[in-house]
Amino acid sequence: MIPEACKQLLGAGHAVVLEQGAGALSGYDDENYAAIGVELVDGPAELYATAQLILKVKEPQASELVLLNRDHLLFSFLHLAAEPELTRRLQEIGLTAIAFETVEEESGRLPLLAPMSDIAGRIATQVGTTLLHQSHGGKGLLLGGLPAAERGRVVIIGAGTAGGNAAVLAAAAGAEVVVFDINRDRLAAMRALGNNVTGLYPYEDAVAREVSRADLVIGAVLKTGTRAPHVVTRQMISRMQAGGVVIDISVDQGGCVETTRPTTYENPTYKEEGVIHFAVTNMPGAVPRSASQALSAVLLPYVLALAGPDWKTCKPLTRGINIEAGEVKHPALKETFA
Amino acid sequence: MIPEACKQLLGAGHAVVLEQGAGALSGYDDENYAAIGVELVDGPAELYATAQLILKVKEPQASELVLLNRDHLLFSFLHLAAEPELTRRLQEIGLTAIAFETVEEESGRLPLLAPMSDIAGRIATQVGTTLLHQSHGGKGLLLGGLPAAERGRVVIIGAGTAGGNAAVLAAAAGAEVVVFDINRDRLAAMRALGNNVTGLYPYEDAVAREVSRADLVIGAVLKTGTRAPHVVTRQMISRMQAGGVVIDISVDQGGCVETTRPTTYENPTYKEEGVIHFAVTNMPGAVPRSASQALSAVLLPYVLALAGPDWKTCKPLTRGINIEAGEVKHPALKETFA
Amino acid sequence: MIPEACKQLLGAGHAVVLEQGAGALSGYDDENYAAIGVELVDGPAELYATAQLILKVKEPQASELVLLNRDHLLFSFLHLAAEPELTRRLQEIGLTAIAFETVEEESGRLPLLAPMSDIAGRIATQVGTTLLHQSHGGKGLLLGGLPAAERGRVVIIGAGTAGGNAAVLAAAAGAEVVVFDINRDRLAAMRALGNNVTGLYPYEDAVAREVSRADLVIGAVLKTGTRAPHVVTRQMISRMQAGGVVIDISVDQGGCVETTRPTTYENPTYKEEGVIHFAVTNMPGAVPRSASQALSAVLLPYVLALAGPDWKTCKPLTRGINIEAGEVKHPALKETFA
Amino acid sequence: MIPEACKQLLGAGHAVVLEQGAGALSGYDDENYAAIGVELVDGPAELYATAQLILKVKEPQASELVLLNRDHLLFSFLHLAAEPELTRRLQEIGLTAIAFETVEEESGRLPLLAPMSDIAGRIATQVGTTLLHQSHGGKGLLLGGLPAAERGRVVIIGAGTAGGNAAVLAAAAGAEVVVFDINRDRLAAMRALGNNVTGLYPYEDAVAREVSRADLVIGAVLKTGTRAPHVVTRQMISRMQAGGVVIDISVDQGGCVETTRPTTYENPTYKEEGVIHFAVTNMPGAVPRSASQALSAVLLPYVLALAGPDWKTCKPLTRGINIEAGEVKHPALKETFA
Amino acid sequence: MIPEACKQLLGAGHAVVLEQGAGALSGYDDENYAAIGVELVDGPAELYATAQLILKVKEPQASELVLLNRDHLLFSFLHLAAEPELTRRLQEIGLTAIAFETVEEESGRLPLLAPMSDIAGRIATQVGTTLLHQSHGGKGLLLGGLPAAERGRVVIIGAGTAGGNAAVLAAAAGAEVVVFDINRDRLAAMRALGNNVTGLYPYEDAVAREVSRADLVIGAVLKTGTRAPHVVTRQMISRMQAGGVVIDISVDQGGCVETTRPTTYENPTYKEEGVIHFAVTNMPGAVPRSASQALSAVLLPYVLALAGPDWKTCKPLTRGINIEAGEVKHPALKETFA
Amino acid sequence: MIPEACKQLLGAGHAVVLEQGAGALSGYDDENYAAIGVELVDGPAELYATAQLILKVKEPQASELVLLNRDHLLFSFLHLAAEPELTRRLQEIGLTAIAFETVEEESGRLPLLAPMSDIAGRIATQVGTTLLHQSHGGKGLLLGGLPAAERGRVVIIGAGTAGGNAAVLAAAAGAEVVVFDINRDRLAAMRALGNNVTGLYPYEDAVAREVSRADLVIGAVLKTGTRAPHVVTRQMISRMQAGGVVIDISVDQGGCVETTRPTTYENPTYKEEGVIHFAVTNMPGAVPRSASQALSAVLLPYVLALAGPDWKTCKPLTRGINIEAGEVKHPALKETFA
Repeated sequence: MIPEACKQLLGAGHAVVLEQGAGALSGYDDENYAAIGVELVDGPAELYATAQLILKVKEPQASELVLLNRDHLLFSFLHLAAEPELTRRLQEIGLTAIAFETVEEESGRLPLLAPMSDIAGRIATQVGTTLLHQSHGGKGLLLGGLPAAERGRVVIIGAGTAGGNAAVLAAAAGAEVVVFDINRDRLAAMRALGNNVTGLYPYEDAVAREVSRADLVIGAVLKTGTRAPHVVTRQMISRMQAGGVVIDISVDQGGCVETTRPTTYENPTYKEEGVIHFAVTNMPGAVPRSASQALSAVLLPYVLALAGPDWKTCKPLTRGINIEAGEVKHPALKETFA
Repeated sequence: MIPEACKQLLGAGHAVVLEQGAGALSGYDDENYAAIGVELVDGPAELYATAQLILKVKEPQASELVLLNRDHLLFSFLHLAAEPELTRRLQEIGLTAIAFETVEEESGRLPLLAPMSDIAGRIATQVGTTLLHQSHGGKGLLLGGLPAAERGRVVIIGAGTAGGNAAVLAAAAGAEVVVFDINRDRLAAMRALGNNVTGLYPYEDAVAREVSRADLVIGAVLKTGTRAPHVVTRQMISRMQAGGVVIDISVDQGGCVETTRPTTYENPTYKEEGVIHFAVTNMPGAVPRSASQALSAVLLPYVLALAGPDWKTCKPLTRGINIEAGEVKHPALKETFA
Repeated sequence: MIPEACKQLLGAGHAVVLEQGAGALSGYDDENYAAIGVELVDGPAELYATAQLILKVKEPQASELVLLNRDHLLFSFLHLAAEPELTRRLQEIGLTAIAFETVEEESGRLPLLAPMSDIAGRIATQVGTTLLHQSHGGKGLLLGGLPAAERGRVVIIGAGTAGGNAAVLAAAAGAEVVVFDINRDRLAAMRALGNNVTGLYPYEDAVAREVSRADLVIGAVLKTGTRAPHVVTRQMISRMQAGGVVIDISVDQGGCVETTRPTTYENPTYKEEGVIHFAVTNMPGAVPRSASQALSAVLLPYVLALAGPDWKTCKPLTRGINIEAGEVKHPALKETFA
Repeated sequence: MIPEACKQLLGAGHAVVLEQGAGALSGYDDENYAAIGVELVDGPAELYATAQLILKVKEPQASELVLLNRDHLLFSFLHLAAEPELTRRLQEIGLTAIAFETVEEESGRLPLLAPMSDIAGRIATQVGTTLLHQSHGGKGLLLGGLPAAERGRVVIIGAGTAGGNAAVLAAAAGAEVVVFDINRDRLAAMRALGNNVTGLYPYEDAVAREVSRADLVIGAVLKTGTRAPHVVTRQMISRMQAGGVVIDISVDQGGCVETTRPTTYENPTYKEEGVIHFAVTNMPGAVPRSASQALSAVLLPYVLALAGPDWKTCKPLTRGINIEAGEVKHPALKETFA
Repeated sequence: MIPEACKQLLGAGHAVVLEQGAGALSGYDDENYAAIGVELVDGPAELYATAQLILKVKEPQASELVLLNRDHLLFSFLHLAAEPELTRRLQEIGLTAIAFETVEEESGRLPLLAPMSDIAGRIATQVGTTLLHQSHGGKGLLLGGLPAAERGRVVIIGAGTAGGNAAVLAAAAGAEVVVFDINRDRLAAMRALGNNVTGLYPYEDAVAREVSRADLVIGAVLKTGTRAPHVVTRQMISRMQAGGVVIDISVDQGGCVETTRPTTYENPTYKEEGVIHFAVTNMPGAVPRSASQALSAVLLPYVLALAGPDWKTCKPLTRGINIEAGEVKHPALKETFA
Repeated sequence: MIPEACKQLLGAGHAVVLEQGAGALSGYDDENYAAIGVELVDGPAELYATAQLILKVKEPQASELVLLNRDHLLFSFLHLAAEPELTRRLQEIGLTAIAFETVEEESGRLPLLAPMSDIAGRIATQVGTTLLHQSHGGKGLLLGGLPAAERGRVVIIGAGTAGGNAAVLAAAAGAEVVVFDINRDRLAAMRALGNNVTGLYPYEDAVAREVSRADLVIGAVLKTGTRAPHVVTRQMISRMQAGGVVIDISVDQGGCVETTRPTTYENPTYKEEGVIHFAVTNMPGAVPRSASQALSAVLLPYVLALAGPDWKTCKPLTRGINIEAGEVKHPALKETFA
């Protein structure tokens, strides 16, 4: 939560406690927070002892789990389906935990995921553009072309929020862009981004043909709570020109490219089949400043609700409960652990 | 010269000799050249012994100088003004040398520089965009912003070909862009790139104010044959936020940013005043594939002329002669070495 | 109703009676109406005596109330929540009254308000642009800037229909535009208007910061049936540069700017805190010609329904009933007068 | 000359005589002309007897040559280089003849050709778009593509006025467009038309590759007074898919496509190598209404000059003299007939 | 179904049988199908004997009806409301038939009609553009105008999918475009296509005025299962200039222009009231290649469902059943034949 | 000269003296100037006694003339052709005077007029937009239209810098725009502003027809040193609808509209023929802040030259000399006073 958002919480009569230095990466000093009345504490122990509602971005780490108790209300990204051990621990603690990724509106939309998808999509195109530079091991191509030089080709698998944002930047940069999606309305929306964007149905053969001609492939098949299918196979990747680039945004769900394996920003890329792969699991981590602004804006209404007495009247929040007083509540999660 | 351009030379009845592997970086294999009739030789010695017109991108290196003789006609980037030793050697050899950067049309335009400026400008924005990622040491900002997050600010010094191309990409990416130039028509052209581009006159105070607010500063003050002035001072840089980025395209001419020092793609950046500096001297080297396409297209007419009997009737070429039969001929060069 | 719409009513077999001169402001002469068969009467008395369905833009004035009787079906803007006396009178008369502003589609949309919001938003930018001229007391700034001169900054509070339309024109004029809204999708829509439009969350501090840097502030917080909150405080306004401009479209609901007070086109502006305020209560009144065209198009289907026998099967109309046979029916109104 | 232009001539004190029905194709009746004071005559005999300055679009036909005499000043498209017989006849008559196509500004621009090139380029894309329909024998492709269907590819040879206009419409229609030209500035201008336009250098191999992938090829290599080179060979055409389309705008100069042969609007197309060819010699003839408006506007200043006493002080006109008092004067023409 | 779609069916374990040559018009040879495992049969007899699910574009012809039996599941465009005889035959056969045009999503959208409307709208503008050429009998106008020549005016009746697509292309071509629709949101969407598009309410007088000024009128009033109303009357058409053009996309539903009568691509136009009429009943037939790509993409999910065991759980398909085991099931059809 | 420009002068070693309060209208306080080292003096007497180079925007007033002496070098707008008395006085004083409006580049361009034309053109559209509001006496039209309401029509006479800028804003606002100009290239440039801009040749009949249909007419016929012709006559104006608006930017040269008479910002409009006229002689005076920024940028290089020793080597300045040591020097001026 950026200081401006904390101030709204304070203005609503709540106390806000922050671990020292927590805002540093996002460009906010402790002074920024202190100045508006946020209480700064030196390390998690004091914080967990003081606060009731625990708001984090990432799931609790080992050192934090020991500090949690049954009176805490935990609100963060959790991804428990892939973390049976963490799930068990949270159950033992007996607290209530709401996951960002399962807060769900009436229409089925997941409002707290959209900003992360926005960012991941844009990061993918930005990173892919420079990985094509020879200095990063790429084939030495200027993505948008030049007078008398050819444009690069970008193939995007999935026209959802992440894929759409990747397409916006790739189109603006002047590349030839092909976006695959099953949904005709999304394909029409992609076309409307510019006359250099073509939307196609993801027949296996069509994907294979386009991937083989691509300079940059962006995987963006994101489905809630399920493993991403391998739309792009190793064989397709092997037919790309050497020095091509693959970015798999869906790596958190196992990746939609067969050759994808998770990486980190410390060591973000590897080559396989002569193609550079970038599959950092937490892509938005590259832009914490922008991410914290975008995320605070969608979080604030829910945090205000959670801090109030009647948060259980807020349907999107109750739909997002993963564990309630130690008991697994979310249907998908129950199924996973059934 | 890409294979397609070589074929035009061959079609005009000329023999074309190429060092093995010379096209590899640009994505062309020896086979591509051999298939159309280019003669491939194993190392420079054989090449210099065979050919009369020597076409290179970079100035001759020590190992090549010993192979040159007075019958060679050398056509490459030379930048002799900064290389008195090289100049002396070429004079001793007694050959004739025409520099890409001094080929000049009637109107004063330098046709062989334009593609390099196109590329450098575009590379600058692409690289700057990703250096702002925290994973590269930047402030963690998404240049074009997001719903509920602020746009980044890009300040470009100089609205010529390089600065203009940097502005095109920065504007397309959605940043707020300020371009400084003395020429009103160029400022009007910058405005026409989009409503997020503002063109201003480079008053010292205006530059200082805008640089201090910038996330990304691109120096693009390129003047033929003169040292770039320090339009951006160390003090201005020191007032930028930590994690900001400076890219100085004019580094080849000494840089228009006081804190600039030349770097290479092996070690492209350094931090000074908390700001990331990128000042690779041969920026287009990141995209040899695109660069060779763009450069071949502007070179071909001149190479065809040089390979013919009457090349001295081609005024842009004769204006570009630096050394003729061992004698310094270019006016600016004569002045430098007077 | 413009003549073309009246002709549709006549074509459907209804008689249409019009007060003489009623179309003059909108550019339609009595002859235009007479030519197609509209009956023109000299003054309201005759009109009210003849007609059953009374269609007006504004709520009935004192002189008209005496002419209304229980058999009339009144269809106009009413805003009864703020007019207890008028409400009482209409109840006494015992008629049925449907307010434009409460006609409501299944989805909650208010179809008869949209054109008025379109217009108010556009008028706000147009008026603000010229109030910035020094000849109108403004700071002497060209909103969209010039080569070598800075762009103006426009801050818009609310990204609904009115705010969105204000943003469209401000973006097209080349200003830097910031739009505040709580809804992320609306912010994304604002960004899509152009790269000079930024959408932000209305944290109090963010609004304060942007207003203090703004040349033109447009208040467009419109919520059905409630008082607009004071999102922009007097203190914020006092930190704007002298000669800045504030336009408050939400003045009808009390204004979302603390320093707003209602004005009229006769005397449209006043200065407070050195800032020009424009808060005409009936902004669309400036463009009756365009407004009557836009309003006729959305009204016609409802008027055709009301003139028919089964209008009570039309749900949006029945939802819009304020008073039925003298009894207050609309839930919000009942609550107000409970 | 459209009536509005004639009126300007009349207003300048000149008499204007017109053959009856001459404006019909362009949508102007004799009455339009008579109403403003143009004298209408019944057939050319009377016209040539009355008028001194003869203004036509096409060169004089046999029936008109007998009516011309040495006092006539002829101003029309002439193309005498290809018409030695006509040239001889005009010399015999002893008149002075200025050709539209040789009127030349200081800068070398040919102002009376530009509108014809504008039109021919636009017609080419419009006709090509529909010839791709299967109902016209084409391959049954929608040029701009659809959601889930591929875009068509248009290859244009030449980025001058004609090629540029063809590219404008093809880009707007949503096709992938490749334009070939030797001139880097023209390639940059083509890119600026849209991100779906790529500009390439016309290496033989590049042209061959792109033509083989094209759905629509437009030849637009126009050079004053010389035969167009065969940039596109029969072999390249033979490698296009069946049902592809070729439009050769340069047919008047012999065509820049080897398989081109002149056609007329009566019988506009033929198939060769499975590809539909359209090479109507007078393409602008399809839109006489637009053409006469555009042509009148560029002609009027010259006609006003010619109708005045000092026309020989107008350099562009004197440069355009082909025959003066029976003597061949234009340098290129003298060379042709030397 | 294009080969890529067939491959998906094969991949799902189904056998696919195709009549030889069926893909030829769309640009797919038998070999394309054979190569992926589609079984090719020589004529319909063998095909109907082998297959259970019969997928066609057009309704069954006489020669096919004799081959159908009660075990077939027929999936094609049917338009039975206008074909009582065909309906009776299908009932007699006792099969189950689902019509493309009645497959309906929860929201009421007809997903299999959208691609056909996309195409018809685009074809209409493309054809209209060239019919305005004098060589096709038109008034000789370049639709988008020229420097010094006026733009053409296009009037489109209906802003649905077909009308909207027609408007997209007409706007891109540079014409002045007026689109009529009752729905305000659609009018706003049309405006957003470009500043040369105006959206108006279809008052009879407004339509009459605009049609009389139009160069090209496109009728696109498409309503499911009802006859299109005559929005444009003969009298309106008679007031257009000679050589104007009318394209009526709604001809399949009787046409929304009074002077419309169905034509075919063999003989596509006729003149009435001096205006060229084009009303080919199967407009998408001009671009089978694009149409089959677009249609395959929307069909595939339903075909996969139909080929599976549980297709009756797919609501859009069951809503689309016209005849089930010989019994008329679709409500609209039952009403028609009641 | 804005403070930033003064600082450049000070940095070049010159002393800068400013009358107190001179920057106030442009938003610069005396403190802004004092802070950087500008000497502030209390009234013109002291200033003229101190300074040698007198830089003003407007020509010297009576009170200033008495302070001028033969050693002054006067640099300002002068417009002496229309001011014989002022000319005589300046001659008597014996000084040297250079007029902004006659400084002329090699190419004939007048660099100091361009910013004023930029501004006047933009002001014209902005003012015209609001004068169309009924509250200002206009016809009550929203210039850019609305869903279901028509767009306004803007007719601009002259496509030079002023007319072009007026067209840019009118096009962006969504109006239908017609620009008249004799020059085909300018018409092509106007078309390129948007598909709602048409460029036509100014035949008298064409102007008459378009003006009669216009809502807003902008006169922008600016020719150096000559009276603007009356392209728009009273009769044309009289055929406009009541409540239309005319803005004549060329009023300084007598106006290109017959009914134009000069007005001031105190009393800017009058009605004639039912049409609102706005013809303020100093239109840029409305935006002194923007104007001083734009003007400073083009002036600075010349002021730096004039403040140096060799200004007579600067050709554009010497071409701009009106009076040199008391003698009329400018050719046009000599002719006027011959």
